[in-house]
Amino acid sequence: MGGDDPQNIYDDPTFFAGYEQLDRFRAGWSDAFEWPAFSALLPPFSGKRVLDLGCGAGRLAHYAATHGAADVLGIDLSERMLAVARADCCHPRLRFQRAAMETVSFPPTTLDVVLSSLALHYVADYAGLMRRVSDWLTADGVLVFSVEHPVYLSRALPEGWVADVAGKPRYWTLDRYGDEGSREENWLTSGVRKHHRMVSTLLNGVIDAGLALECVIEPMPDPEMLAREPDWIYERKRPFCLLVRARKQ
Amino acid sequence: MGGDDPQNIYDDPTFFAGYEQLDRFRAGWSDAFEWPAFSALLPPFSGKRVLDLGCGAGRLAHYAATHGAADVLGIDLSERMLAVARADCCHPRLRFQRAAMETVSFPPTTLDVVLSSLALHYVADYAGLMRRVSDWLTADGVLVFSVEHPVYLSRALPEGWVADVAGKPRYWTLDRYGDEGSREENWLTSGVRKHHRMVSTLLNGVIDAGLALECVIEPMPDPEMLAREPDWIYERKRPFCLLVRARKQ
Repeated sequence: MGGDDPQNIYDDPTFFAGYEQLDRFRAGWSDAFEWPAFSALLPPFSGKRVLDLGCGAGRLAHYAATHGAADVLGIDLSERMLAVARADCCHPRLRFQRAAMETVSFPPTTLDVVLSSLALHYVADYAGLMRRVSDWLTADGVLVFSVEHPVYLSRALPEGWVADVAGKPRYWTLDRYGDEGSREENWLTSGVRKHHRMVSTLLNGVIDAGLALECVIEPMPDPEMLAREPDWIYERKRPFCLLVRARKQ
Repeated sequence: MGGDDPQNIYDDPTFFAGYEQLDRFRAGWSDAFEWPAFSALLPPFSGKRVLDLGCGAGRLAHYAATHGAADVLGIDLSERMLAVARADCCHPRLRFQRAAMETVSFPPTTLDVVLSSLALHYVADYAGLMRRVSDWLTADGVLVFSVEHPVYLSRALPEGWVADVAGKPRYWTLDRYGDEGSREENWLTSGVRKHHRMVSTLLNGVIDAGLALECVIEPMPDPEMLAREPDWIYERKRPFCLLVRARKQ
């Protein structure tokens, strides 16, 4: 399979066995590092038609449904993740469908809100997807997404950090920031393919699709988060993810 | 002088003696790494009223004047830099004025284009300056600026790079990305004060001032640039500067 085809890594048994151990899986989703910042970007859902691209275990789509959305569709390529989503996130106005972000299609101006949480870095043709999302959105429709930060994806050493004498993160190592394209990394298993794009490319993809950037966030831990997870202090050293809200013009 | 007051470091004799040795000084300005990308963002100048914030040796302001601008004002805090600007950049539609970006003022909607090259990282109240710029701009007026990239300003080691066995840059070291505020560094002299802001803060400052982001660029060397300066290949490892074009709505 080429570097531009979707990779269904979440159905890889080794990957999935690792992923389901993550704190952010299932009930832990709302304790994820970026959730306070992500949720602050969400628009009112009341009466809205919502799409979640790369919905995974379905919690974000379920959140939209339980916050008043008229209709929510979560799509994902992974049967394993969709099985979890269907088991955990039953709601009368929420559907899940197996589909690739790269090829799924909707009629123009039929969606009010498009969401995506840490999934767009799996897509090769990001600019094309942004144009399709813009086409699907109604006037004044909203896109909110998170991706792994390009600085996070551009670590020089496999583990990213250089440690101090106590073994704690001292500084982050950065390399190949300007070299965009497909990258394979070891995360839960080998050969996990992600697509690196600079921050500027991510933002211009939104703008060039006809969406107005409303807010860009690089979440950092606040005192409340640090009280819960003291080791998140090291997250201040480098950005982990990039959050974007944009509006159809 | 406090961390929020303007620091007139360009009039420091040691700093200036170092700065005037830089390749980008005077005639070398158009060979600067980011100039091809910066110039590509510039709007047509014909008939426009233009302000250059932190104009330094005046070449960018002169470029606007010689490309048809009706009136160009370059402001800078440094007498030494303004003396160079006045010597090098004489033009009937170009004026230079000693003023701080932090306090300079213009009537609302009297400027068509505001420019700033590698100067806004010296300003403490960036969000306030963006609001003032937005106030000065006419409807459809354009702001184009470059700043040192927050990743460049967040180097962990003084020199930024960890070298390989041949002494060439291996990777960039990153720390304190999330810790915004005043920082002093050694660059040509000690105690040069810059203000670190995350990429997201820089962009939200533009948006929140009522300007629409049109383009965000993190310049990388192309083959032509590399033919001229082979060592610029290492610039691909981390972003050096951030360029923004925005338009008054």
